[in-house]
Amino acid sequence: MKKVKIYVTLRESILDPQGSAVQSSLAKIGYDEVADLRIGKYLELTLNDTERDIDSLIKEMCDKVLTNVVIEDYRYEIEEAN
Amino acid sequence: MKKVKIYVTLRESILDPQGSAVQSSLAKIGYDEVADLRIGKYLELTLNDTERDIDSLIKEMCDKVLTNVVIEDYRYEIEEAN
Repeated sequence: MKKVKIYVTLRESILDPQGSAVQSSLAKIGYDEVADLRIGKYLELTLNDTERDIDSLIKEMCDKVLTNVVIEDYRYEIEEAN
Repeated sequence: MKKVKIYVTLRESILDPQGSAVQSSLAKIGYDEVADLRIGKYLELTLNDTERDIDSLIKEMCDKVLTNVVIEDYRYEIEEAN
């Protein structure tokens, strides 16, 4: 079994209205130290043992279902599940 | 300037219907290796230099605004921004 952590972020060039809204809310209650805030997704998958190549499997799932490659980037980490 | 990465996840005991829906969608198109899938949030903050203690600042923002402590856990990493 493997545990996979996937971090999905909006591409640098894409505006993040959700992040901006949270940032201005924080500023309004006094947290004006925050210069920038962007919000992405964090996915934790548990994968059963498989004969397929894990890297290509994850990339396929990300490209097809888990992310929108037009506006999002992703990176991932694979760990041994205990 | 500091870069802070915050990972927000649902507590273990809380059901994740969004994750379950994505997992069953993946299974339907052939990715039945996925034994479990949970979806959380990933926040990237850039903080201006401040005299306040960074750790307590981040914890305060997380507890007040960024997370729902009743159903969510969070962890964070602080990096030097370049």
